[in-house]
Amino acid sequence: MRVEGVHRRTITLSDDGWAVDIIDQTQLPWQLRVRRVDSLAAAAHAIRDMQVRGAPLIGALAAYGVCLALRVDASSAALERACAELAATRPTAINLGWALARMRAAVQAVGEVGGGGDGPARVAAAYACAAAICEDDVATCQAIGQHGAAIFEATWRAVGRNRPLRVLTHCNAGWLATVDHGTALAPVYLAHDRGLPLHVWVDETRPRNQGMLTAWELGQHGVPHTVVADNAGGHLLQRGQVDLVIVGTDRTCANGDVCNKIGTYLKALAARDAGVPFYVALPHSTIDWTMASGAEVPIEERSGRELREVVGRGDGGVMTHVTVVPEASAVANPAFDVTPARLITGLITERGVCEATESGLAGLYPERART
Amino acid sequence: MRVEGVHRRTITLSDDGWAVDIIDQTQLPWQLRVRRVDSLAAAAHAIRDMQVRGAPLIGALAAYGVCLALRVDASSAALERACAELAATRPTAINLGWALARMRAAVQAVGEVGGGGDGPARVAAAYACAAAICEDDVATCQAIGQHGAAIFEATWRAVGRNRPLRVLTHCNAGWLATVDHGTALAPVYLAHDRGLPLHVWVDETRPRNQGMLTAWELGQHGVPHTVVADNAGGHLLQRGQVDLVIVGTDRTCANGDVCNKIGTYLKALAARDAGVPFYVALPHSTIDWTMASGAEVPIEERSGRELREVVGRGDGGVMTHVTVVPEASAVANPAFDVTPARLITGLITERGVCEATESGLAGLYPERART
Repeated sequence: MRVEGVHRRTITLSDDGWAVDIIDQTQLPWQLRVRRVDSLAAAAHAIRDMQVRGAPLIGALAAYGVCLALRVDASSAALERACAELAATRPTAINLGWALARMRAAVQAVGEVGGGGDGPARVAAAYACAAAICEDDVATCQAIGQHGAAIFEATWRAVGRNRPLRVLTHCNAGWLATVDHGTALAPVYLAHDRGLPLHVWVDETRPRNQGMLTAWELGQHGVPHTVVADNAGGHLLQRGQVDLVIVGTDRTCANGDVCNKIGTYLKALAARDAGVPFYVALPHSTIDWTMASGAEVPIEERSGRELREVVGRGDGGVMTHVTVVPEASAVANPAFDVTPARLITGLITERGVCEATESGLAGLYPERART
Repeated sequence: MRVEGVHRRTITLSDDGWAVDIIDQTQLPWQLRVRRVDSLAAAAHAIRDMQVRGAPLIGALAAYGVCLALRVDASSAALERACAELAATRPTAINLGWALARMRAAVQAVGEVGGGGDGPARVAAAYACAAAICEDDVATCQAIGQHGAAIFEATWRAVGRNRPLRVLTHCNAGWLATVDHGTALAPVYLAHDRGLPLHVWVDETRPRNQGMLTAWELGQHGVPHTVVADNAGGHLLQRGQVDLVIVGTDRTCANGDVCNKIGTYLKALAARDAGVPFYVALPHSTIDWTMASGAEVPIEERSGRELREVVGRGDGGVMTHVTVVPEASAVANPAFDVTPARLITGLITERGVCEATESGLAGLYPERART
């Protein structure tokens, strides 16, 4: 996707061919800082600290984290330790476990060190698998963009084509959340590039303000947008200011329930109350076929500091932390919530659009669905 | 209500007997600063700038704003100019118009200057009316507390009395929003004082963070509470962490629709989805009998700076502004939304509790209801 007019991805191999370069998202939208990740510990830290976030991108960096661990010790014991450390960084996104399982299988297929395989071959297999995970993610997001853009175009026709299509999104499910293109924003970019006039309402997305990542992305791509407080979406929907809501997901359950950034559920309720379609865009890797419904999803409780402190640009353009909740008050910070399938108009995947139901998902993924 | 152990009100006459002292709420929760308001312009500024906010308190300060104007010029022309200036400060809260109409009637009852009345008599009538508005507000809030506390006690019995009653509130409808006691928080304080164990979830309430006022009040009174992002309430309701939601209102329509701080509607939707009761506490002065439904309520659009900039405690304890939304992105800041009557379990007024319907309100206020 474009940054200052230049195409780039969120995660790339460094010039040395083994470390990885990531965009440090904790510095956006104020500065574009690329960080080199050269160890398992650095990869785990970058995920835990949300230098990278977004379910697909977390999976991609975790894959390279395995590669970096194996460069030091290519044994199966080291592989298992690396997978365990990376899996523990964020509990809710399912892509993390999906990517680690794929990496584990690819490395183990080479054979144990000293038992048919050798270290360099295992490391090479790991890097090949991590690269494939990234390439697959790009192709997946492109396909989501195609299917989603068709929905945008149909909705625009339905509203009369005489004004911009008004889209509302929550959190960031753009290219910063993936390797490229994004999930929920992939249709926005594709529709915009095709000439469909769009305006995007961007939820601030407290407490981490991922809406600023979305606003920054949209600005870089030239898509008109307006940032609103998370509280405003219900009002906008109620007064006819939104034609379509689209969000991403960190884990999609077998019944179509969707676990996404805290606050998503409130927007789904408001969209239903206003009769506005509510879509969820997702790659197959976020589907957790073992999770029957959203009630079972573990919800990450993150540090209260994220709520208590706000970071922004202070005097002289310096990144500055201010405390907004006094220490005298307790804080709680659940990071995700569950949107019940009944509130979801459709799931937009790389294979097409389906109902948010077990049979809807089974229709698109017959080889994976539970029987 | 208690501040550092001492009882005080939000608005009092100064020692000189004519200016008024207010608590500057833009400085809370960080410092308790009392400001002297000694002119119409200062009163209008304090309301517009939200040094005082909350529908009942806005009405009380507007009443004293009329007094201060009449001290300079007691003519009916000056009275009308003062009322017009004060009415224009905030468009949504109906108490403002209610208080001004009451003041106008009290002053005009004395007779025009040079036409049966005299300046000092008109000023005296104005101060008497403003004082009565304040005393009425205190009595009204006490009565709301009584009726609300009975609901809290019944709900606590219904949940088994073996753990604290878990209440969620949005914005600040505590004593800082009134002259004393508060509306939505009056039952919290009374139930707490009677020994009922309570825990209050406090919505941050972006963009102005009035939740910090609520947290500060609750802390001063010793009520256990936890601050959460506005996004979190749906999740808490869905997972059974809330027994009751209670909020205030800036304007209550004749059909029971309630206009309150932006984001209230989203919590009402989530409460309904979870089967949790959603109550609105209000003095009679917020009822707009002329407004048939919420669709007609003018929604104040406030400055985008409120969203773009966050104020908190910076290094060395200094109040510091940081920018969180870059100038490259547009912002929108609607300040209120409408919660449809169908989502409201009951309206808690100084006369008792009623259904959020025209007939419910008419039952409590037969003398005022439209026929």
